[in-house]
Amino acid sequence: MKDPVYKTVELTGTSTTTIEDAVNKALKRAHKTIKGLRWFQVTETRGSIDKGQVHQWQVTLKAGFEIQD
Amino acid sequence: MKDPVYKTVELTGTSTTTIEDAVNKALKRAHKTIKGLRWFQVTETRGSIDKGQVHQWQVTLKAGFEIQD
Amino acid sequence: MKDPVYKTVELTGTSTTTIEDAVNKALKRAHKTIKGLRWFQVTETRGSIDKGQVHQWQVTLKAGFEIQD
Amino acid sequence: MKDPVYKTVELTGTSTTTIEDAVNKALKRAHKTIKGLRWFQVTETRGSIDKGQVHQWQVTLKAGFEIQD
Amino acid sequence: MKDPVYKTVELTGTSTTTIEDAVNKALKRAHKTIKGLRWFQVTETRGSIDKGQVHQWQVTLKAGFEIQD
Amino acid sequence: MKDPVYKTVELTGTSTTTIEDAVNKALKRAHKTIKGLRWFQVTETRGSIDKGQVHQWQVTLKAGFEIQD
Amino acid sequence: MKDPVYKTVELTGTSTTTIEDAVNKALKRAHKTIKGLRWFQVTETRGSIDKGQVHQWQVTLKAGFEIQD
Amino acid sequence: MKDPVYKTVELTGTSTTTIEDAVNKALKRAHKTIKGLRWFQVTETRGSIDKGQVHQWQVTLKAGFEIQD
Amino acid sequence: MKDPVYKTVELTGTSTTTIEDAVNKALKRAHKTIKGLRWFQVTETRGSIDKGQVHQWQVTLKAGFEIQD
Amino acid sequence: MKDPVYKTVELTGTSTTTIEDAVNKALKRAHKTIKGLRWFQVTETRGSIDKGQVHQWQVTLKAGFEIQD
Amino acid sequence: MKDPVYKTVELTGTSTTTIEDAVNKALKRAHKTIKGLRWFQVTETRGSIDKGQVHQWQVTLKAGFEIQD
Amino acid sequence: MKDPVYKTVELTGTSTTTIEDAVNKALKRAHKTIKGLRWFQVTETRGSIDKGQVHQWQVTLKAGFEIQD
Repeated sequence: MKDPVYKTVELTGTSTTTIEDAVNKALKRAHKTIKGLRWFQVTETRGSIDKGQVHQWQVTLKAGFEIQD
Repeated sequence: MKDPVYKTVELTGTSTTTIEDAVNKALKRAHKTIKGLRWFQVTETRGSIDKGQVHQWQVTLKAGFEIQD
Repeated sequence: MKDPVYKTVELTGTSTTTIEDAVNKALKRAHKTIKGLRWFQVTETRGSIDKGQVHQWQVTLKAGFEIQD
Repeated sequence: MKDPVYKTVELTGTSTTTIEDAVNKALKRAHKTIKGLRWFQVTETRGSIDKGQVHQWQVTLKAGFEIQD
Repeated sequence: MKDPVYKTVELTGTSTTTIEDAVNKALKRAHKTIKGLRWFQVTETRGSIDKGQVHQWQVTLKAGFEIQD
Repeated sequence: MKDPVYKTVELTGTSTTTIEDAVNKALKRAHKTIKGLRWFQVTETRGSIDKGQVHQWQVTLKAGFEIQD
Repeated sequence: MKDPVYKTVELTGTSTTTIEDAVNKALKRAHKTIKGLRWFQVTETRGSIDKGQVHQWQVTLKAGFEIQD
Repeated sequence: MKDPVYKTVELTGTSTTTIEDAVNKALKRAHKTIKGLRWFQVTETRGSIDKGQVHQWQVTLKAGFEIQD
Repeated sequence: MKDPVYKTVELTGTSTTTIEDAVNKALKRAHKTIKGLRWFQVTETRGSIDKGQVHQWQVTLKAGFEIQD
Repeated sequence: MKDPVYKTVELTGTSTTTIEDAVNKALKRAHKTIKGLRWFQVTETRGSIDKGQVHQWQVTLKAGFEIQD
Repeated sequence: MKDPVYKTVELTGTSTTTIEDAVNKALKRAHKTIKGLRWFQVTETRGSIDKGQVHQWQVTLKAGFEIQD
Repeated sequence: MKDPVYKTVELTGTSTTTIEDAVNKALKRAHKTIKGLRWFQVTETRGSIDKGQVHQWQVTLKAGFEIQD
């Protein structure tokens, strides 16, 4: 079966600094247990607020990887 | 890495009585194998019909939990 | 033609008590004239308000049934 | 100007018991400061989880009322 | 607990021939490790292009299965 | 009244072979009782699974026809 | 059964002049066979073009009416 | 802080004549208490029906204005 | 190749008077450079506000035309 | 500037046989004037009906290509 | 009434530098008049362009706070 | 014809660093051939992954410009 099949997982990364950092935090953590992560798509950008400033960015994304035989 | 990362799973709970019961059935079952479930979001409410009444509520939800190291 | 074909109708059930009751009211009424209702999907949950409380739940759903020959 | 104009506010009610109770909690609280609430529409049903059961239902809704002169 | 609970996984099947083949490729691969797959829903149809023709169909779907005790 | 008015019905066709066949099955069945079907739009592609292969394609579509006087 | 149940039909009205006229054309036609039409919601506004001008407005709407016993 | 911040309110204007009139009715009323309304976006077009004709257009819109210091 | 292929362009027409006029303004302008415009679909209705009235209607639409050989 | 930039065009391919053929017809035609088409995404599947069968499949897709310097 | 009720407001923050800065500008301004802002969700990211570069980021978000007694 | 008409193009900018940089890359490139770009709206944020980190941000946006006579 030469046609690859991919699976998607939904993750939420968090960061106190930027949206990009939250995405990278999520991918770095997923990389520990999932091999071959290939692409992602941001599906939601939320966060918590403290004293009128963003306290924590919470970025949800779908990340896809090829299922290995 | 102090910023937590969460994963989401999509479940469908069923119940012959209420929407709330279907959600709780799904969470109770997931709790057996997933530690640290934190929040959920209902994404679809469907069901089967028998003799002009709801036979089974089928409630789909996303449930999030923190990925542990 | 052995492959079944289904039709969907959109209904709004109402109730002064619960969402589940509104769905059942709609299905019970539809059952009087449509045979073979099989499944439903809730598409909207609205209602009217009286004195700061829900006066009437208005739950819209699609209900499917097999078209008979 | 005889044609009425309405305004919508977005609220999130919470409850440890049912979705209906969360909606009523939100409407009861809004009723203290807004006169003439007329209709609502549920836009999101979420919640927090504790020990594999729903800890708190969080139901977001839009509620409309007529703007008085 | 007699009410069944289902889990959904998101997969992307690929094929050089048809949309149907891409779906079947995804299901065939998932079937190796997941027992009791019951239903699917196509959520996205994409693909890559080579010389003005479809090179690879990429069909994303959600597939549901009953969680066994 | 020279401006035509159309009505839309929602159907789900099924097939064990292809998406196109499921659509044609639905249209063929609807054609028995509805005259003047003009256009359709696919709104959902689902199916049931058996032994890791598509058992039945379930394609939902809206079909429009002109209301005759 | 005092709680009313409503049904929705989807119609497309057409007009060479305005969106409002297309909606009224659809409602006028539906009124011939459906009693008790109560509300509508516009779901799509399309049209055909001739010589760089709108030739025909095509406005799709859902119209609801109470199901009578 | 030179970068402006805007707030959005959701309104529903009504009219017995046109969609445009319903929007203007909503804006005229909001203008009495909100200074600096800048833009709007129509989010829903509904209405009530009487004797097969539109009785009242109900047009929902979001209107944005700059928050003043 | 007898099966026609169409292309869609997205335009925003503006008008100080009506939604219909904004659509016609967009089509009239596009007609200067694109031959064979066939259909359109309104995708957004926005506008600017001046003194509590609509100053400019901004109607976005997709317009399709057949690609000529 | 080493980071590539892509442009997307929206096309509708037609076919009397299959969805796949309609997509390929659109890509083949676009390939005549656009170099470097890389990926596509199906956004709508419609069609015309004749005598209770699909007369013409109309498949809308977005196709992306790299903008060359 | 121990179950908290939340209200959501929709804001658009602007910035010449980053998306994050636009969000923080909106929250900082809202904090002046609203106590207890708890969470936010980004709903739209737009901007104005000048000479082929982003001139102003315009980020719309919903921000929620607990209604105090 | 004093009412301006705008056209929208859909672009995907890429960057190895930030979302903002990807947007600016797309606008800078489009500016070479399109005069008068006025506004943009981000419609999708995706990317490729390498070794558990974002390799390339891929940000899709619609950019609008006034059609000149």
